Amino acid sequence: MSISSPGWRRSTNSNSCPLHTFYQFNVSSGYLLAEESKHAVKVLRLMSGEEIQLADGKGNLYHARITSPDPLKCEFEILTSIAIPKRKFSIHLAIAPTKNADRMEWMVEKCVEIGIEKISFLLCKTSERKSINMERLEKIAISAMKQSQQAWLPEIVQMTSLQTFLKEQPETQKFIAHVDDQNPNLLQHLATPRSDYVILVGPEGDFTKEELDAASSAGFKKVSLGPHRLRTETAGLVAVTALNQVNQK
Amino acid sequence: MSISSPGWRRSTNSNSCPLHTFYQFNVSSGYLLAEESKHAVKVLRLMSGEEIQLADGKGNLYHARITSPDPLKCEFEILTSIAIPKRKFSIHLAIAPTKNADRMEWMVEKCVEIGIEKISFLLCKTSERKSINMERLEKIAISAMKQSQQAWLPEIVQMTSLQTFLKEQPETQKFIAHVDDQNPNLLQHLATPRSDYVILVGPEGDFTKEELDAASSAGFKKVSLGPHRLRTETAGLVAVTALNQVNQK
Repeated sequence: MSISSPGWRRSTNSNSCPLHTFYQFNVSSGYLLAEESKHAVKVLRLMSGEEIQLADGKGNLYHARITSPDPLKCEFEILTSIAIPKRKFSIHLAIAPTKNADRMEWMVEKCVEIGIEKISFLLCKTSERKSINMERLEKIAISAMKQSQQAWLPEIVQMTSLQTFLKEQPETQKFIAHVDDQNPNLLQHLATPRSDYVILVGPEGDFTKEELDAASSAGFKKVSLGPHRLRTETAGLVAVTALNQVNQK
Repeated sequence: MSISSPGWRRSTNSNSCPLHTFYQFNVSSGYLLAEESKHAVKVLRLMSGEEIQLADGKGNLYHARITSPDPLKCEFEILTSIAIPKRKFSIHLAIAPTKNADRMEWMVEKCVEIGIEKISFLLCKTSERKSINMERLEKIAISAMKQSQQAWLPEIVQMTSLQTFLKEQPETQKFIAHVDDQNPNLLQHLATPRSDYVILVGPEGDFTKEELDAASSAGFKKVSLGPHRLRTETAGLVAVTALNQVNQK
């Protein structure tokens, strides 16, 4: 399904087809990154004169034209650019990675598509996975940013212990996903619009009582994500969707 | 993350661990289905006297005890049962399957975890995939139902043409996911609680103008799922999450 982004003109080529988008954090270099060059020239077979779109991941989109379709260093010239402001809210998901790496990878893809500013990975008491493949997750985030025509690349943060993490968060609305029957507050009811949110999601074995207490002491409110038992990666996705929807007016 | 389901007691064994759940559409047989028998005895190594939980997918959960751990025909006796009422609303997602079958499979898993009554597959003008593997999708739905401790198995419906589909839907609130800048109505703002919903999500190439017009004529309202361009499977997931959240009070 294609949904056009309101608020900025989606560039099209002379046949009114959407332009191919490439990630280019340093636009002033004048040529695409090695992997993007290869994709543009070898896979998409773009030629001199063809128009493309560049996203620098820092809020800028560029309408550009290929000047030299070199598969190692595809050169371009900038035609126009547009600066996309940051959203009026921000979402930071901090999650204990699942044992199965695939499940985290698709969650990162989906969170980026739906809208997120930052994803951190937590090492918890019952975590089964103690490390993550940062390079792979960053590639997935870049690809999802391009696919969903966004200008900001979410930040992916290396794994830290929950203990360290709890001390360092500047966000104003802090939540921890956890339900007991005595505390059925839903995330979308406690979160108020236009704020900076951080939400914690625990590992398969859940947070321990000590971890929950430490989070409470650090100002994190316990919230429910609904009546069903959700897998870790589903919980992350539902939380991010809920916080986006709270801000859609 | 574990979230306990409110409204019914989650069965636990003598160590207060949650019981393993098995799908058993015909409880009166007295033995588990072949695949479930194998899983119980060969993988989980359950023994005589151990307690299990059965879900019949038709609203009933049973607390049972293994009487004969045969890996082909694992026998059990019922201890107690509980009937879970249907939800006070229903969600029917009708989606054009993605070219990549994996993407539909995880979407089915996630939709079942989050909460859904029915998933239909649509053949549209620009569909790249013309058939689906029903057996595999049903297995995924069963597994997600068990994992999320639910009692109702969502219905998975074989592929039909959009044209035929539009004529046959009894739901009272009908939506089609599509955004143009002239129609930015968000699904979660148009859907009202405690109703029966059907929402259509188009293929990678989107619905054609003729398809959109036919859906409008059949009473489907165009809705937006947010400001970003979403992949087909992400759109399905966001729609199902939004309709669940509209009903969480």
